[in-house]
Amino acid sequence: MIQDSAAPRESVVHDTVTLDDEGRALVIIDQTRLPRVVSVLSLTTQEEIYRAIATLQVRGAPAIGVAAAIGVYLAALGIETDDWGEFYSRFALAKQYLASSRPTAVNLFWALDRMEGVVVRNKNLPVSEVKFLLHDEAARIHDEDIRVCRAIGEHGLCLIRDGWGILTHCNAGRLAAVRYGTALAPLYLGRERGCNFKVFADETRPLLQGARLTAFELMEDGIDTTVICDNMAARVMRNGWIQAVLVGCDRMAANGDACNKIGTSGVAIIARHYGVPFYVCAPTSTIDMNVSDGSGIVIEERAAGEVTDMWYRERMAPEGIKVYNPAFDITPADLITAVVTEHGVLTPPYGESLTAFR
Amino acid sequence: MIQDSAAPRESVVHDTVTLDDEGRALVIIDQTRLPRVVSVLSLTTQEEIYRAIATLQVRGAPAIGVAAAIGVYLAALGIETDDWGEFYSRFALAKQYLASSRPTAVNLFWALDRMEGVVVRNKNLPVSEVKFLLHDEAARIHDEDIRVCRAIGEHGLCLIRDGWGILTHCNAGRLAAVRYGTALAPLYLGRERGCNFKVFADETRPLLQGARLTAFELMEDGIDTTVICDNMAARVMRNGWIQAVLVGCDRMAANGDACNKIGTSGVAIIARHYGVPFYVCAPTSTIDMNVSDGSGIVIEERAAGEVTDMWYRERMAPEGIKVYNPAFDITPADLITAVVTEHGVLTPPYGESLTAFR
Repeated sequence: MIQDSAAPRESVVHDTVTLDDEGRALVIIDQTRLPRVVSVLSLTTQEEIYRAIATLQVRGAPAIGVAAAIGVYLAALGIETDDWGEFYSRFALAKQYLASSRPTAVNLFWALDRMEGVVVRNKNLPVSEVKFLLHDEAARIHDEDIRVCRAIGEHGLCLIRDGWGILTHCNAGRLAAVRYGTALAPLYLGRERGCNFKVFADETRPLLQGARLTAFELMEDGIDTTVICDNMAARVMRNGWIQAVLVGCDRMAANGDACNKIGTSGVAIIARHYGVPFYVCAPTSTIDMNVSDGSGIVIEERAAGEVTDMWYRERMAPEGIKVYNPAFDITPADLITAVVTEHGVLTPPYGESLTAFR
Repeated sequence: MIQDSAAPRESVVHDTVTLDDEGRALVIIDQTRLPRVVSVLSLTTQEEIYRAIATLQVRGAPAIGVAAAIGVYLAALGIETDDWGEFYSRFALAKQYLASSRPTAVNLFWALDRMEGVVVRNKNLPVSEVKFLLHDEAARIHDEDIRVCRAIGEHGLCLIRDGWGILTHCNAGRLAAVRYGTALAPLYLGRERGCNFKVFADETRPLLQGARLTAFELMEDGIDTTVICDNMAARVMRNGWIQAVLVGCDRMAANGDACNKIGTSGVAIIARHYGVPFYVCAPTSTIDMNVSDGSGIVIEERAAGEVTDMWYRERMAPEGIKVYNPAFDITPADLITAVVTEHGVLTPPYGESLTAFR
């Protein structure tokens, strides 16, 4: 039995991460307050932007990349000097500071590197001009995310069928990117074309991105969505309710090992057991050709309180208990049926297909 | 990194379920308030006992069986008649009422059937005498649980080694039985003999029996215990930290399919993937030879609020979202390395070994 409850909510249409119209603030939806409160934050200082990333007010690999690009642009805007050397050294400090906000998702570093490239390539221009170019690069990273995610949606949609049951883990939807998301993009595009999917959203402990964010954004779009606890994935697959698993990715190694939200690899193992295809949807900016396999990816470990205290309010595990709280895990490439990128659907062996597309 | 926090607690020594010294009340530890409050309840009416089982103040298949046996004895005590026919018909109503408190664990029905057998077999005795015999049968079911669980512990201990990492799901410890538990009994017996295990306790959403109860009782006993979210099981196995999985069982079908807390089958699939042995520890009273396989076992579905509202206090999923909340799942027999009973360790094919032992 799938249980319905209570009333729908008002629709909220807003890009998850954007630069405000005056080009002076990073505007985000505070994801720590969803689904109960839709709070839009306007952040201007590096410290605010660092904290927003570190505390998951903005999260999701693509969204973090865009937020960091805009963040380092705003930092650059505040550097008052006409000397390129001084400008670059202060820019590099700001970049380093923002890069230290979270360790795992590669898009953060990728976006900051792109921004740094603009500074480095334009040593001969006046600093004021470089700032204009940084604005344009941040805007490009933002706009590209929308196009890239839409393309992922198009390619992913070819892999699924109207009426299918889809399982997803964590949130790789519009709240994880600018507008379409990665793993959920095929569902949004399918919905535009009249497809009806039955989505099962793993709640995704400890921080419940599935229950809070995926459920919220899919419901906003009118997509049939059921929340389950993470440990129910095997049962819904055994029930025959799932025809495909779609997940996002925080960093993919050169061999196709996919680092994503903790629990993803367990879902992949269970999907393999039940013969359900397991698709990783990710922009090529998520692929890190500098790490040969998953063992080279730094896995963030977060505070024990995320596990022991229910949403930081009420302690549920005994005082003094030990906790292990890795925020991500590695899904080995051999459990991944295909990788959906903006350029198309990659199949094994990923060592070859990733190199070709990247 | 495994994170330690804060101080140890005072030790609590109390049988989980027992008849009070005057033989007039069922005495339980209220498990809904653990680990923060150790509250001992003294229940006398059928309604109180029904509610205690239905709301999980007492839970765990063996403990429910003992509670129901004591409960129906207390009900019988209150039936004021000397006529056996009237006594039996009112006894049968009380039995039926208590049997409806939860649907899945077979020990509930097994214990109530044993109690009914006492009434049926002693039609020729005065009712007052039958009540004495019912008292003795309830006491026997209580005492047997202690012996049976200790025997499970002995047999289970043969399967594990000092220093091993053990993963367990939900709570199949002393809080799920009278004194030793099933899956945790080998750990307690090993501890008595100087073994040191490193236990990883799945928190076990939605009701967190692992984080609240397993963590609590293992810490009480000084056993090295780390709480993880359910979705971290694959990662700790991949880390090489787990040498065996030990779980309990709510009902085992004649072919060895094991119905246990939701999430158990996922752990079994992941354990198989990583080559970790997966042991189900259960008294033979848990085996239901009347159901040929897992598909014949009724799976309780519980309220959506258990999933959407954090411990019933704060809503985490959006209003209106659908929820699927099965309380149990079926681990197919072919994923079970061995079944540990009070009579010994059973190995596949379970169709044969269960019949022989039962």
